[in-house]
Amino acid sequence: MLFTSDNWGGVHPKIMEAILASGVGFAPAYGNDETTKTARDLFEEVFEHEMAVAFVPTGSAANGIGLSLLTPPFGAIVCHEHAHVLIDECGAPEFYTGGAKVLPAAGAFGKMTPDTVRAAMAPYDPPMAHRVKPSVVSLTQATEWGTVYSPDEIGALSNTARSYGMAMHMDGARFAGAVNATGASPADLTWRSGVDILSLGGTKNGCLCAEAVVVFDRSREEELTYRCKRAGLGTSKQRYFSAQWQAYFAEDLWLSLARQSHDQCQRLASAMRASSTIEALVNPAINELFVRMSHETAGTLREAGAQFYDWIQPGDVFAGEARRFLTSWETTDEQLSELAAVLRR
Amino acid sequence: MLFTSDNWGGVHPKIMEAILASGVGFAPAYGNDETTKTARDLFEEVFEHEMAVAFVPTGSAANGIGLSLLTPPFGAIVCHEHAHVLIDECGAPEFYTGGAKVLPAAGAFGKMTPDTVRAAMAPYDPPMAHRVKPSVVSLTQATEWGTVYSPDEIGALSNTARSYGMAMHMDGARFAGAVNATGASPADLTWRSGVDILSLGGTKNGCLCAEAVVVFDRSREEELTYRCKRAGLGTSKQRYFSAQWQAYFAEDLWLSLARQSHDQCQRLASAMRASSTIEALVNPAINELFVRMSHETAGTLREAGAQFYDWIQPGDVFAGEARRFLTSWETTDEQLSELAAVLRR
Amino acid sequence: MLFTSDNWGGVHPKIMEAILASGVGFAPAYGNDETTKTARDLFEEVFEHEMAVAFVPTGSAANGIGLSLLTPPFGAIVCHEHAHVLIDECGAPEFYTGGAKVLPAAGAFGKMTPDTVRAAMAPYDPPMAHRVKPSVVSLTQATEWGTVYSPDEIGALSNTARSYGMAMHMDGARFAGAVNATGASPADLTWRSGVDILSLGGTKNGCLCAEAVVVFDRSREEELTYRCKRAGLGTSKQRYFSAQWQAYFAEDLWLSLARQSHDQCQRLASAMRASSTIEALVNPAINELFVRMSHETAGTLREAGAQFYDWIQPGDVFAGEARRFLTSWETTDEQLSELAAVLRR
Amino acid sequence: MLFTSDNWGGVHPKIMEAILASGVGFAPAYGNDETTKTARDLFEEVFEHEMAVAFVPTGSAANGIGLSLLTPPFGAIVCHEHAHVLIDECGAPEFYTGGAKVLPAAGAFGKMTPDTVRAAMAPYDPPMAHRVKPSVVSLTQATEWGTVYSPDEIGALSNTARSYGMAMHMDGARFAGAVNATGASPADLTWRSGVDILSLGGTKNGCLCAEAVVVFDRSREEELTYRCKRAGLGTSKQRYFSAQWQAYFAEDLWLSLARQSHDQCQRLASAMRASSTIEALVNPAINELFVRMSHETAGTLREAGAQFYDWIQPGDVFAGEARRFLTSWETTDEQLSELAAVLRR
Repeated sequence: MLFTSDNWGGVHPKIMEAILASGVGFAPAYGNDETTKTARDLFEEVFEHEMAVAFVPTGSAANGIGLSLLTPPFGAIVCHEHAHVLIDECGAPEFYTGGAKVLPAAGAFGKMTPDTVRAAMAPYDPPMAHRVKPSVVSLTQATEWGTVYSPDEIGALSNTARSYGMAMHMDGARFAGAVNATGASPADLTWRSGVDILSLGGTKNGCLCAEAVVVFDRSREEELTYRCKRAGLGTSKQRYFSAQWQAYFAEDLWLSLARQSHDQCQRLASAMRASSTIEALVNPAINELFVRMSHETAGTLREAGAQFYDWIQPGDVFAGEARRFLTSWETTDEQLSELAAVLRR
Repeated sequence: MLFTSDNWGGVHPKIMEAILASGVGFAPAYGNDETTKTARDLFEEVFEHEMAVAFVPTGSAANGIGLSLLTPPFGAIVCHEHAHVLIDECGAPEFYTGGAKVLPAAGAFGKMTPDTVRAAMAPYDPPMAHRVKPSVVSLTQATEWGTVYSPDEIGALSNTARSYGMAMHMDGARFAGAVNATGASPADLTWRSGVDILSLGGTKNGCLCAEAVVVFDRSREEELTYRCKRAGLGTSKQRYFSAQWQAYFAEDLWLSLARQSHDQCQRLASAMRASSTIEALVNPAINELFVRMSHETAGTLREAGAQFYDWIQPGDVFAGEARRFLTSWETTDEQLSELAAVLRR
Repeated sequence: MLFTSDNWGGVHPKIMEAILASGVGFAPAYGNDETTKTARDLFEEVFEHEMAVAFVPTGSAANGIGLSLLTPPFGAIVCHEHAHVLIDECGAPEFYTGGAKVLPAAGAFGKMTPDTVRAAMAPYDPPMAHRVKPSVVSLTQATEWGTVYSPDEIGALSNTARSYGMAMHMDGARFAGAVNATGASPADLTWRSGVDILSLGGTKNGCLCAEAVVVFDRSREEELTYRCKRAGLGTSKQRYFSAQWQAYFAEDLWLSLARQSHDQCQRLASAMRASSTIEALVNPAINELFVRMSHETAGTLREAGAQFYDWIQPGDVFAGEARRFLTSWETTDEQLSELAAVLRR
Repeated sequence: MLFTSDNWGGVHPKIMEAILASGVGFAPAYGNDETTKTARDLFEEVFEHEMAVAFVPTGSAANGIGLSLLTPPFGAIVCHEHAHVLIDECGAPEFYTGGAKVLPAAGAFGKMTPDTVRAAMAPYDPPMAHRVKPSVVSLTQATEWGTVYSPDEIGALSNTARSYGMAMHMDGARFAGAVNATGASPADLTWRSGVDILSLGGTKNGCLCAEAVVVFDRSREEELTYRCKRAGLGTSKQRYFSAQWQAYFAEDLWLSLARQSHDQCQRLASAMRASSTIEALVNPAINELFVRMSHETAGTLREAGAQFYDWIQPGDVFAGEARRFLTSWETTDEQLSELAAVLRR
């Protein structure tokens, strides 16, 4: 009963097949191969926009590189106070940007609003040289609490960002889930709503290692390339990584997997809701379920073999009793039934 | 009626004299001169401890250098949510430390407590590599709200810091005021209470340009020297800067000036308290007075020629109506009377 | 006839098999899985020493992380004037170390000697704060010219480094080739000869993506972990990467592949030597052949379908006529015959 | 007999007077005062061009800030192999630029030529992402060997720089000497010859502490301001520093002092040339004399009380026997006679 994280999951057979199929003989290194070129084209197709795109090994690296294209070292990045870029990347944004500051904005269940962004900006408006320069708003889609932004909500945040002269960054580690949840197109959720740069994650959704920095402005390609290179992010045998994207997008595999993960999460939520001692904190829009349960209940579940995370964030309002359960496309009905059985006891 | 900042003030005649007296002929550059050696000795005498000390041009540089000696680039600095190092240094700590993260802790009127530090640390305890490594607690003495920490309070914060394996940094831009307010010795307020590194400021208290990084561990001298050098902080004609410290400490000039500034601040506070429309927010321990007054009252004062700052901080609880008034050793009784007269109208 | 680079090659079937075998079901992310633990143990076995080891996606990242553990930001790294870390990593060492300086040392065909290191150090000896602090000697094994250092030569360089208080770093992107060429053990070529940190590369020798930072001092594990994390170098599904090392070391696959590559390189060298217009610049110890040939000859070869690199380095003494040919374990006898046939014409 | 460095000298009485004259009462801090505004205007007058200008405490900081405006962190700065920014600033350019690489170019007695710049650029032309991006040519005027570039020479280097898409930086720590030596105007020696940013030094020529970053493009003002601020370079009581520039430029004091220093250097050179054991290496254009003398002769001079520096640079061709003698406007005829007397013995 593993509900720890979707990146504990394996590699989807179709992804693995694609990797295998790239395996024979010589091909130009560092992304100059045909597989990579095809993957790049596919990205432009999926997002209906020209772009500069870099394939990198991790989401933290993708976020760091993306943010470094949008803020000077003396700039400020505003994000949700529980954002991965703020809390869970060990300072990667600071490392990649050369020391920009990451400022927290409030918002229920991981979602900033124009108002909470404006509140965060108050001490920086009007800008003055004593204080870092407001440069980027970074939102996570889907958020760290498994909620999603609609295109309209993203558009409103973009307008707020623009009003301060700030750019828009999106951490899309679980972007597929957000596409599935909103029914909006990748384009609607990004550049059409004002997003400048997207970190697109595939690893949590069935890939082996597939993360991308999507820059909806091709003129930034040179800088993107240099920044990845000097961070040592360009794998030499890039084709094996690029091949994953082909399989990922083919026949909308990415969306099927997101749907499947979400379905299992809904089933998990139902099982939880049946328990009187557990409070579902927010309806799961993707494959993440957040519940409140006492340490005793949590202990009982863990003794029965369930694995999941306590969810302690800055400004915790759940007295340390928030817990995160993640499902994946590999989560089986058996696992869910087993957990339900434990809950019923 | 200038109450904007103590660094708008001039240079005390005795400080200027000391500069002049250093002015003739050749002397070794970069701090290898006799004046600088004497100043160093004086620091050890005043603080009753051996040390490595670097003289730098600004308080932000002093803080940056000091913090860079106490945290790795992947570390976290915890300070008050209104701390100068967090809000008003344009990211200097990030620059000097190579990207460490500065985390806010709460506390009334600029003062952290062991509890607020622990609350800030909660998401980082126990440490894990996804999150930056807790490395330093930095407190400001006197604080950004003109309050001061007693030696006991500092000691309690040090104990809290040590319990997380963190070092203690003190931003002493207005340290003289804190010595005057607490009646404690420089040693009691620093190393005896667990402070590892102090930024000592003289500029706001009558010097032309005198800031120091005081490291109470001589074995760090080499690193201190290298870090200052590569930041270009070592003035070549150092003697003119070092001379200021001699005059500053001679016959306790620094404490006289701090006392004088504080006395004028108390008079200012009295005049303010006499006004029914003004609320004194906190009793001034040094030369800073914080009051709450409506925009209308503030406007009236400004029309009458008074200059002071609105005090907008993250998480402002005063509806934008907090105002800061600073006095200095140059603040005259006439200025205070003039303001009192305006207030009476 | 591809002789461009060994990282143009594919993935060895045994490596691919190991990846596949790791593919089913859930496992802890970020290297907390069993496969990774086994790989770590294997490293200690192969190198006969305890260590902290981090698996990272590229050799540049490995070098950057390793160097950042050995030099402060105000330090100097001395390496050969043609070293990859100096010339071909787009400033990755500067990025990872926070701005350390990389200083060139001379030496025929990629090899530094104690004398050339001492010559490079002359302006930094004795150290003074105006100049960066000598901190690391970094050598490449095998070198950028396909030559190798014997354990004695490494030991002599280590002694020189120690005499300046500097640590020893080794870029082992083609370390397998050096083991094969010298007949020395991995331990003899590293820690027994004074090497503190090794970047071990597997990608160029048959892996898909396998690079490691090998730190022969386990007490550095925490810093190693933090530094990798904040650079976003830790892949979440680490087991697929760790599995490669198991196959790589099993039954000395790594050494077989290195031998095979070297054998093909010797055949290539023989074919070249048969041509009167081509000068072999140095006897190939690994799978790299450097020859001097006119632009005309090079053009003829390229027209016939051969791909290889011009080798332009700082201080080029070959009038732009040095060319690099690389073989790999996938280089076939047919390719070599084809090239030989072209050369005979 | 101090011939060590011009920054061992004192402060010229007129400069000190100007500092004193700024000393009374309150004035806006951080350069918002009238004295600073006047100094800025004066800079535009002297250089006949609009500009953004920042006053900073040291030449290394000025160089660091200036370079950081001209190169991205993944860029390369080309300068003479003996340049102060490369050798003597403890990595300040790397610190300020966030890790750009400083590449050496050759040239007799401190002067690069278009040919030596092109040779240094060869491995970077055409640019590729494996290698840092050529971004700035930085020249020192006057050079580290006391020689000067004519406007034509600077223009030729600018043309070379532009051909690679690189900007032009000038380290003018001893710029006054170069104006005096060439007879060219400040404008001719800078923007009219293609220089984008100049570090102008006053400290070595009679000021107490006066260094400036002169950016001949006012649109860069915001970035300049932010970068200085986050480095903690903006002194709060700026007026005392700005006042120095007023006195420095008034009645061409700066050029008188440069002339006087140069005259004394010529006398020193004559005295040296009279000695058969001393070889003048290059005719002094400013106040620096470089001679070759044996360790024995140097020892004799030192025993007689003369102080001067051995001049050991990377690639030293003088067998460690180059020595540097500096004069200043304070160098007296008596000191020169005394040295001449020793030489005659």
